[in-house]
Amino acid sequence: MHCSRLLVGLAACFSLPAMAWERVLIDADTPAQNWRVTSEELGIKADRPFSVSLRTLHGGRQEGVSLIDIDNGAMTLTVIPTRGMNVLRAQAGDVRLGWDSPVNEVVNPAFIELNGRGGLGWLEGFNELVTRCGYEWVGHPGVDNGELLTLHGRAANIPASRVVLEIDEKPPYRIRLRGELQEKAFKKVDFSIHTELAVEPGATAFSLHDTLTNNGDYPKEYQALYHNNFGSPLLEEDARFVAPVKQVSPFNDKAKGDLATWQTYRAPTPDYDETVYNVIPYADERGDTLAILHNKAGDRGIAVGFNTQQLPVFSLWKNTDTQGQGYVTGLEPGTSFSYNRRYQRPLGLVPSIGPKEQRHFDVRFQLLADKVAVDKAVKQVDSLQAGRKTEVRQVPLVDLSKD
Amino acid sequence: MHCSRLLVGLAACFSLPAMAWERVLIDADTPAQNWRVTSEELGIKADRPFSVSLRTLHGGRQEGVSLIDIDNGAMTLTVIPTRGMNVLRAQAGDVRLGWDSPVNEVVNPAFIELNGRGGLGWLEGFNELVTRCGYEWVGHPGVDNGELLTLHGRAANIPASRVVLEIDEKPPYRIRLRGELQEKAFKKVDFSIHTELAVEPGATAFSLHDTLTNNGDYPKEYQALYHNNFGSPLLEEDARFVAPVKQVSPFNDKAKGDLATWQTYRAPTPDYDETVYNVIPYADERGDTLAILHNKAGDRGIAVGFNTQQLPVFSLWKNTDTQGQGYVTGLEPGTSFSYNRRYQRPLGLVPSIGPKEQRHFDVRFQLLADKVAVDKAVKQVDSLQAGRKTEVRQVPLVDLSKD
Amino acid sequence: MHCSRLLVGLAACFSLPAMAWERVLIDADTPAQNWRVTSEELGIKADRPFSVSLRTLHGGRQEGVSLIDIDNGAMTLTVIPTRGMNVLRAQAGDVRLGWDSPVNEVVNPAFIELNGRGGLGWLEGFNELVTRCGYEWVGHPGVDNGELLTLHGRAANIPASRVVLEIDEKPPYRIRLRGELQEKAFKKVDFSIHTELAVEPGATAFSLHDTLTNNGDYPKEYQALYHNNFGSPLLEEDARFVAPVKQVSPFNDKAKGDLATWQTYRAPTPDYDETVYNVIPYADERGDTLAILHNKAGDRGIAVGFNTQQLPVFSLWKNTDTQGQGYVTGLEPGTSFSYNRRYQRPLGLVPSIGPKEQRHFDVRFQLLADKVAVDKAVKQVDSLQAGRKTEVRQVPLVDLSKD
Repeated sequence: MHCSRLLVGLAACFSLPAMAWERVLIDADTPAQNWRVTSEELGIKADRPFSVSLRTLHGGRQEGVSLIDIDNGAMTLTVIPTRGMNVLRAQAGDVRLGWDSPVNEVVNPAFIELNGRGGLGWLEGFNELVTRCGYEWVGHPGVDNGELLTLHGRAANIPASRVVLEIDEKPPYRIRLRGELQEKAFKKVDFSIHTELAVEPGATAFSLHDTLTNNGDYPKEYQALYHNNFGSPLLEEDARFVAPVKQVSPFNDKAKGDLATWQTYRAPTPDYDETVYNVIPYADERGDTLAILHNKAGDRGIAVGFNTQQLPVFSLWKNTDTQGQGYVTGLEPGTSFSYNRRYQRPLGLVPSIGPKEQRHFDVRFQLLADKVAVDKAVKQVDSLQAGRKTEVRQVPLVDLSKD
Repeated sequence: MHCSRLLVGLAACFSLPAMAWERVLIDADTPAQNWRVTSEELGIKADRPFSVSLRTLHGGRQEGVSLIDIDNGAMTLTVIPTRGMNVLRAQAGDVRLGWDSPVNEVVNPAFIELNGRGGLGWLEGFNELVTRCGYEWVGHPGVDNGELLTLHGRAANIPASRVVLEIDEKPPYRIRLRGELQEKAFKKVDFSIHTELAVEPGATAFSLHDTLTNNGDYPKEYQALYHNNFGSPLLEEDARFVAPVKQVSPFNDKAKGDLATWQTYRAPTPDYDETVYNVIPYADERGDTLAILHNKAGDRGIAVGFNTQQLPVFSLWKNTDTQGQGYVTGLEPGTSFSYNRRYQRPLGLVPSIGPKEQRHFDVRFQLLADKVAVDKAVKQVDSLQAGRKTEVRQVPLVDLSKD
Repeated sequence: MHCSRLLVGLAACFSLPAMAWERVLIDADTPAQNWRVTSEELGIKADRPFSVSLRTLHGGRQEGVSLIDIDNGAMTLTVIPTRGMNVLRAQAGDVRLGWDSPVNEVVNPAFIELNGRGGLGWLEGFNELVTRCGYEWVGHPGVDNGELLTLHGRAANIPASRVVLEIDEKPPYRIRLRGELQEKAFKKVDFSIHTELAVEPGATAFSLHDTLTNNGDYPKEYQALYHNNFGSPLLEEDARFVAPVKQVSPFNDKAKGDLATWQTYRAPTPDYDETVYNVIPYADERGDTLAILHNKAGDRGIAVGFNTQQLPVFSLWKNTDTQGQGYVTGLEPGTSFSYNRRYQRPLGLVPSIGPKEQRHFDVRFQLLADKVAVDKAVKQVDSLQAGRKTEVRQVPLVDLSKD
């Protein structure tokens, strides 16, 4: 334990394991309390002063929801411990990552019935930049093995049980925020998910590093999907989606109609609702790959990096309905598509995790702030595609007409 | 912002917009805290000193529920921000407005599964004088458009997201308590309801002024019903219901039996359960109308005023079972009756609200403290009836035998 | 009210009704707060100093859960007011009463949907030594009278509404912890359950004394089952169950296979899942009886005492799967077995409680710390059996094949 003189006045002092300050923000004995720490207080003379703060929301269905803001000097990230360590939004200058959901409260899971609305209760809280889906299942609601699987699983509605902030003592003073999700039910599932968000001061990038552990003694099916959602200003008419694509297919009959233009976006379109495209991406020899959303001018965008050995498939969710309805696109790497689990088993998209085994999921977000950055990322995609051909499959992988 | 010297010692000072003190009691940054303000502290020399206080309940299923008591010098009103700004009860001298439900806790919605008991989970929290029903739907549970609609909608179980107290600076020092309900689900509904309760010091009357806004970009069905519930002492054997009635019909076959005496009440009657009568009221040219419950002697009662352009129909709920079971009657103006929504569409009782449109619901409660007051109110009803005839329909509007 | 000088420094002083100190730990006006009292502070010069403390858990799905630890000098009992006054565990020296569930958080009912997983949501919080099941129903999920009855009822997920600690002023300074459960729904049920846990300083025994009251005006079906769960170190390969048995039968076809060895336990056995045996016990003329679990060596065990006039039947739950899956056995006296209520009505195992009537349930737990204690308890069982014969019924009482 080390209490620097510079820390006088802070609510607690910091332990010093290895080479990092660490502070437990929430655990069994530590209630979430309004709190803030700055690089200056930590004795760090950063080019870009940074701060991390914790606050709790009150009133409405957000009563008791904690938020953690990480302002790294270039970008402010807001994380929701109470909702699966989801990332509510990021703001870098005038670029907002995230979207405007009709759900404008940050809803405490205590007030949500996932089983309501025929398993669509999840929609009453959905408004994040990154919504974790899984890990027992993902996908549309429906009965599988005699049990109603609710939309996209429980992860987003599990409060993190231990939240720890760690800041490297040496440049680049990497900031890590960790939280643990317990996804458990006697006889059913014994998962824990160690989530980590990492960001460096001054960067307009951040990354997620999650580890799923099957604490159980039996192999167990699992699914993961990172529902990464972007609205304005990146999403606009003629914005483009760019990725190295081995196969693309329409999610359902509705998506067939727009298949020819699946990589560009419509303006907000009344009654459009949504189309979804199932993508099997190409990757490099280590499995690393990239998906890009950029605006029409090609001078602003976001690159989402992931690894196909961890997350082999990708859903492109194009919800280009009106602004009020939620004008948003999802760039969603996953173990699986968004069909109900019973449809994905025959596709080989319901993997298993052995007893005591772990699965890692790393997802990287890089803001593309200008044309040079966008062009460079698009070139990376070209190089990953490497001239290989794209199969445009006309027919959905799953026949939902019997649903 | 204005901090009067008289406010020294108060937890915060009051802003002074227009001509009223205002204080935010609960919002995102303001947790509900035990608090009290009196007319004296506000520098008001009222004939009838008044006070407003906030407290939070603990233990059981009421953990974390906030209550606001408005003692206006003649009557104490208790409002539940945590439960849709419902009015728990009112007490004016020896007259209690409200009833004795077996549910004697004020239940936090966090502990209620509306989807439990086949959609009857709402019954685990039902005990108020005024329970707001709606606004996405009202009525008995059942599947409509492929979704289980739970009893009487979600409003009563939505905690208010911003609660503001406003007190006029000048006589009659009108007291207004506002709270906002967010009734939202991505792709499903984007409603907000601004509720207001208004009361004047010294009065034995209060009124509700609610505004439903469809923030969405699409027209949307809605329903509203004000479940206003009265037990002893107003309800007793031979108590009477008086209203200007265009049409009355039994809700179901059971209610046919007592149709001849639908306007009088039984004593607490074992195994009676309930009967419900569907009423289409007459109103004046502006739509204003009145429904009265008075005791047998006709010297105490309550008048419920509403507007048929806002709330065109009315349910009379006669739950004259035993005291222990809940001896209570509901005087319930609504857009709709209490059938499941799928039955009300053909009746034309599922209205629609356009994008960005608003609907106003005003409901007034006037205690009738003596025979003069009761007689005067009954005369008003006579004048609204204006000699027009009442259709007593023998057959329920909906054939539930196929249910 | 009596404030001894010795109490200076305590958060509050103690009232002195009759001959006991009493303190309200939680009620409508008293939030759960971290607190501790010791025998010394109470002026008690006990041979075995004791203490009682209250703390609240944070983070994860255990946010806001209160725990009460009673350290009686020989044993520490942990009670969960937020979860039906269940007993989480007891520790006496190196003997732990309780088990290791995969669910290692103490889950706040606010985060549980009992109706989830087809009525198995209860499993997301199940990890206690004593889990109260009932009182409106117990048993496996399933539809009865048109309503989905969720696994084992609501009691374990009802927070106690008034928690009171009482300590006798005179030797043996009996400690009583009381909490009240409100199990209510308008028109459906009007139960309250006064729970009491009693323990004496220095003892390795404790007892539960619960009183169910039907506050309603109508007779009502009820069911109760005390799900008392024991893992290591008492449960191990060749551990034994001993009880005076009138009839035993397999719960279902699966349990038929191990019927011959139903009184001994397997080692942790992969893929074993569970077997359940339905027992009708013998008792003495007052109905008192005993069930014992002891280890292989017969030098450590637990005796569970109950009364067959209160709890006429008994379920032996043998969940001898792997340690990680939850290696545990349940010694479960009840009004009923664990079938869905609709199957138990024909068996006469769905009793009724009249209006204003009460039912008492007393369950006693005695640690058997050595061979002498085990042998003595086994002898008691022999004496209760009194040479009467045991019917070993080969066929389950209920034919579940039609389920």
